[in-house]
Amino acid sequence: MKPINVGLLGIGTVGGGTWTVLARNAEEITRRAGRPIQITAVADRNVELAQKVTGGAARITTDAFELVKDPSIDIVVELIGGYTVAKELVLAAIENGKHVVTANKALLAVHGTEIFAAAQKKGVMVAFEAAVAGGIPIIKALREGLSANRIQWIAGIINGTTNFILSEMRDKGLSFADVLKEAQRLGYAEADPTFDIEGVDAAHKATIMSAIAFGIPVQFDKAYVEGITKLEATDIKYAEQLGYRIKLLGIAKRREQGIELRVHPTLIPTRRLIANVEGAMNAVLVQGDAVGATLYYGKGAGAEPTASAVIADLVDVTRLATADPENRVPHLAFQADKLSDLAILPIEQVETAYYLRLRVEDKPGVLADITRALADHAISIDAMLQKEPAEGESQTDIVVLTHRAVEGNVNSAIARIEALPTVLGAVKRIRLEELN
Amino acid sequence: MKPINVGLLGIGTVGGGTWTVLARNAEEITRRAGRPIQITAVADRNVELAQKVTGGAARITTDAFELVKDPSIDIVVELIGGYTVAKELVLAAIENGKHVVTANKALLAVHGTEIFAAAQKKGVMVAFEAAVAGGIPIIKALREGLSANRIQWIAGIINGTTNFILSEMRDKGLSFADVLKEAQRLGYAEADPTFDIEGVDAAHKATIMSAIAFGIPVQFDKAYVEGITKLEATDIKYAEQLGYRIKLLGIAKRREQGIELRVHPTLIPTRRLIANVEGAMNAVLVQGDAVGATLYYGKGAGAEPTASAVIADLVDVTRLATADPENRVPHLAFQADKLSDLAILPIEQVETAYYLRLRVEDKPGVLADITRALADHAISIDAMLQKEPAEGESQTDIVVLTHRAVEGNVNSAIARIEALPTVLGAVKRIRLEELN
Repeated sequence: MKPINVGLLGIGTVGGGTWTVLARNAEEITRRAGRPIQITAVADRNVELAQKVTGGAARITTDAFELVKDPSIDIVVELIGGYTVAKELVLAAIENGKHVVTANKALLAVHGTEIFAAAQKKGVMVAFEAAVAGGIPIIKALREGLSANRIQWIAGIINGTTNFILSEMRDKGLSFADVLKEAQRLGYAEADPTFDIEGVDAAHKATIMSAIAFGIPVQFDKAYVEGITKLEATDIKYAEQLGYRIKLLGIAKRREQGIELRVHPTLIPTRRLIANVEGAMNAVLVQGDAVGATLYYGKGAGAEPTASAVIADLVDVTRLATADPENRVPHLAFQADKLSDLAILPIEQVETAYYLRLRVEDKPGVLADITRALADHAISIDAMLQKEPAEGESQTDIVVLTHRAVEGNVNSAIARIEALPTVLGAVKRIRLEELN
Repeated sequence: MKPINVGLLGIGTVGGGTWTVLARNAEEITRRAGRPIQITAVADRNVELAQKVTGGAARITTDAFELVKDPSIDIVVELIGGYTVAKELVLAAIENGKHVVTANKALLAVHGTEIFAAAQKKGVMVAFEAAVAGGIPIIKALREGLSANRIQWIAGIINGTTNFILSEMRDKGLSFADVLKEAQRLGYAEADPTFDIEGVDAAHKATIMSAIAFGIPVQFDKAYVEGITKLEATDIKYAEQLGYRIKLLGIAKRREQGIELRVHPTLIPTRRLIANVEGAMNAVLVQGDAVGATLYYGKGAGAEPTASAVIADLVDVTRLATADPENRVPHLAFQADKLSDLAILPIEQVETAYYLRLRVEDKPGVLADITRALADHAISIDAMLQKEPAEGESQTDIVVLTHRAVEGNVNSAIARIEALPTVLGAVKRIRLEELN
């Protein structure tokens, strides 16, 4: 099948991540999209960097305006950022009949109406999953996954820098200024962090989500924007005492009179899942009238998480641009003739950690026998809980948490342990996953 | 634009929910899909019920096999359940060139390969978002949103009944048998709960997700399935002491030798977000090589949450079946000429709750003055925190949490409070959202 040719504008952090992931997962992505997706041309002022990343596998140019006119290009990926040149390039790409994928939230929040109208007129797609919450497919969820719903409100932690700062302020009781310096040192905040800490970045993203949720045009200029620079450690502490955490939320809410669109520090009950989203992570909570509350959580920034969204859009455009139903969206995600024959393993070959509970006689040597049986089957111990026998009793419980082990080995070890005279009855075995 | 005609097989809980939501949100759904989506025929043995739900707005029949051949029907929605009749009906619908939307996880986990092949051959779509995790768009996330990734593993709480039982066992220290009875009384568990409590339902869903994640055929017969019936309250307590919660997880994991596909009670660290998913809620955690971990959370069952997924599939099929790019997936979710002119409200008209922190002289009457100022502006108090002045000091902090109020009123109240001689400096104001 003829490959889809992609022209990449900007090969910095996200552009480099896009190149890397497309190359690394080329085989699976092709099986999903129905045809290869390849970056054939890159425009960047830093030719040396572009050559280093691509290793000569793509044409490099410094002239982005030439690239968006290249007749061999099917899709243009815009990763330059900003409102001015990026806007001209996106409009030129559309004018030349290219589909566009962009991560540029500022551009869409401010000039989206003009850009979408141009795309509509030319019959091309503009995809922007990467513009909101990085790798979390929240645009797709709002636009397609929740399309049955009258969406009532959206509340999102959609800026990782500020969530990292707020988490650190709470954890360590430090001031905003001190944590900001630390965040800059660690690379979680930029040298000029204004857009993040003043809430502008979050407001761009909230603006885009408000449009998709309520079917209104993007209206960044109407958003209320308040950052976290005036937040004091005292208030984080008092909020905690009252059962709340403070998060910078982007909120879009439908009211009878109109739409609330606002970004500001917000107290939320600690028991809500979204209140426990810490560090640089993002999460978006959506309230729909049919589905109720759904939450979407993941990394909101970084080279590969953002590239994940850019490439998902490339796959989407590739699938949708193919008019025959067989090559649109495959039932099982991968094209039907490209399924894998990886076998499903029998449970004995599964690897996981284990919780083992044993009832034992409280006698010397019991523990030694048990740990020996485990060690002989290549099972190592992560933690142990041993209770004193209750008053007047001679039996007690031992609980062992193991490191990862093969289930077959664990079965053998359990059989040996159950045969010990000091072990009473069956060993209770529950599997344990760290999920990290 | 010509409407899409839907034939509904089964108008029980989910079928009724689908009818209700399609009718209630018809205007928004049409703006999203590009054309009206209407249920024109319903097949159900219970004609009386079908007539009651539809109010005469659709043709009712008891002959489902007649309905799937009806030339006026574009999409068949199968909500009958089970493996036998449902399979014949779905295959007959496909054979007659209908697209199919189904919530039938058992059918797809067991007979998916045959059904998808038939659909592929006829060039029609089979959509099944509702088959896994109810209203959470997890199928779409795996099939489209994460298509850039080599997915490493999926771990999901994908059965609400068992998660409700486990939450109750932990909360109240009760036995499995006692909580099961309670769950049946409350309607969280069916009269015959075998499929849920033995893990079969979760294994159906895990099987479907494994196929989409790894590009393998559905192979329910290879899944390892262990339910929660043997779980004891003692182990939940010990796990808690060691920093873990026990959840029934559906796990699909890629190993070099093959795929692990298993459902069983699992200890997971309490600090993980997914460990805090309580009651009948569902959540799926997906680990991809580019995006890292993403989590999807929401209601996994119920009439309207499941209908939300069924209708999202109807919108998807409608969009995709329309070949011209303008009517595929609109940039802003709603068709470009169908945007709404709902205004974005100025911040003074926004309604939210507030956290107010005041520095005050510790004198009689201070609190009365403050609460009077709030009451005069229609602001009621939800909670208050007042500290004793520190040793030798005459000032202290008062923190007030208000109920929802209009921001303009709060501004006026704050101005009046700041003018009080006993209140020192500015009032610190942070907004508060319950997000429920």
